[in-house]
Amino acid sequence: MRERIQPILRDAGEILRAAFGRAVAHEAKAPGDLVADVDRKVEGFLISRIVETHPCKSFWSEEAGSVGPATESRWILDPLDGTANFIAGVPHFGISIALERAGRIVEGYVYQPITDELYHASEASDGAFLNGEPIAVSDTDTLSDALVVFGFSANMTNIHRYHDEWGGAFDSCRKGLGLLAPALNLCNVARGRIDAFIDFGSSMEGQAAAALIVQHAGGTVQNYDGSPWDHRTVGVVATNAGLPETLSAL
Amino acid sequence: MRERIQPILRDAGEILRAAFGRAVAHEAKAPGDLVADVDRKVEGFLISRIVETHPCKSFWSEEAGSVGPATESRWILDPLDGTANFIAGVPHFGISIALERAGRIVEGYVYQPITDELYHASEASDGAFLNGEPIAVSDTDTLSDALVVFGFSANMTNIHRYHDEWGGAFDSCRKGLGLLAPALNLCNVARGRIDAFIDFGSSMEGQAAAALIVQHAGGTVQNYDGSPWDHRTVGVVATNAGLPETLSAL
Repeated sequence: MRERIQPILRDAGEILRAAFGRAVAHEAKAPGDLVADVDRKVEGFLISRIVETHPCKSFWSEEAGSVGPATESRWILDPLDGTANFIAGVPHFGISIALERAGRIVEGYVYQPITDELYHASEASDGAFLNGEPIAVSDTDTLSDALVVFGFSANMTNIHRYHDEWGGAFDSCRKGLGLLAPALNLCNVARGRIDAFIDFGSSMEGQAAAALIVQHAGGTVQNYDGSPWDHRTVGVVATNAGLPETLSAL
Repeated sequence: MRERIQPILRDAGEILRAAFGRAVAHEAKAPGDLVADVDRKVEGFLISRIVETHPCKSFWSEEAGSVGPATESRWILDPLDGTANFIAGVPHFGISIALERAGRIVEGYVYQPITDELYHASEASDGAFLNGEPIAVSDTDTLSDALVVFGFSANMTNIHRYHDEWGGAFDSCRKGLGLLAPALNLCNVARGRIDAFIDFGSSMEGQAAAALIVQHAGGTVQNYDGSPWDHRTVGVVATNAGLPETLSAL
């Protein structure tokens, strides 16, 4: 499977990489338009190439909605995870592809086109992988040592919500960052770069593939309210191997 | 000048790029140590190579402090702008080099090693440049259209300060982001990717070169308190061509 999806992701990444490099002053006047164009272009590319190479020809994507026949399986696509970063000139964005079967995610791929990093896990596989090499979550088990990412930008209502609900982590972790791009933040939990990621607003498209990657890398994933993980529920709390009990006690 | 500094920056960037790719779970246990090592390595590399190629052999750098003879000119170095991003797996970090003469910045270079983008301006030059091509700030002149970056992470005290002092921008801009890496954020103002950058804590090392680049790209730079720009004063407010009056009225 990876052999078929990987070249599609690398080619789609080239579309994002080229558009990111070109985005300069005169185009920034309408950044929303620029992104919508790129989003649709990558989405169309992914759908047409997957249709050519894979038996499942049913899709769900943020821009296009439902595409193809209603079947037991469908691809869940996020053509541009980290839109605001893309616009603001921050190369922290990617592409997410998940294959859902009977309501469960069975394959997950996240591609970072600027660093050429492809994350992957499948329900059948033992482990999670970055460019084919196994990755694992960190084992930091105390908040004062932990690097925690929250899914916020400069919006006081959202920031207050995180602080009210996760103040113990917000104020006590070693370093906290507010970062957009849920798929990549989850992959950074999976590879042990950060110890936890907390986002009340992450979409199914952004989180479906990467949550599977976190789980197969030894991490724990829950819905934002602490209930058992369902990728179709908005929001996520993902942690490494050492912090789940600490965070659930907050 | 650029011909001499550019290869030094690209070689130093290779040190950062390699270390960023290697930083995985088992090393993340002591992220501070990892970064201090990389910081010192890049710093030592920059100093030794500049000493070989340039008559000014006096330096100021965050890690090493003052290096070399006390002369009218000195190099101000930031070997790793965006430390926390580097640790957290976010490829938004860079290297900053400024040449100061009699208290003024006369040359400024910022290098983003992941995207291979070299920003440059000199007091003598007409304009600012990205990989040799001229760049310019945006002309967005209304806050509701503006993309504004503030220099905060998940720290409520800092966030409240920005909100108290810049609430008009915080709440009314099109999109606000909290992003570390002052040199790169300033360069994104210079090239028109963002419309303003506001940071009360940016260091001389992080801001000296990039502020010159913003000014030569048509932007406005002030101290955080609105007083005339002095790169030795902590903090910065940088804006495009359209917003200075709006922001100064807040």
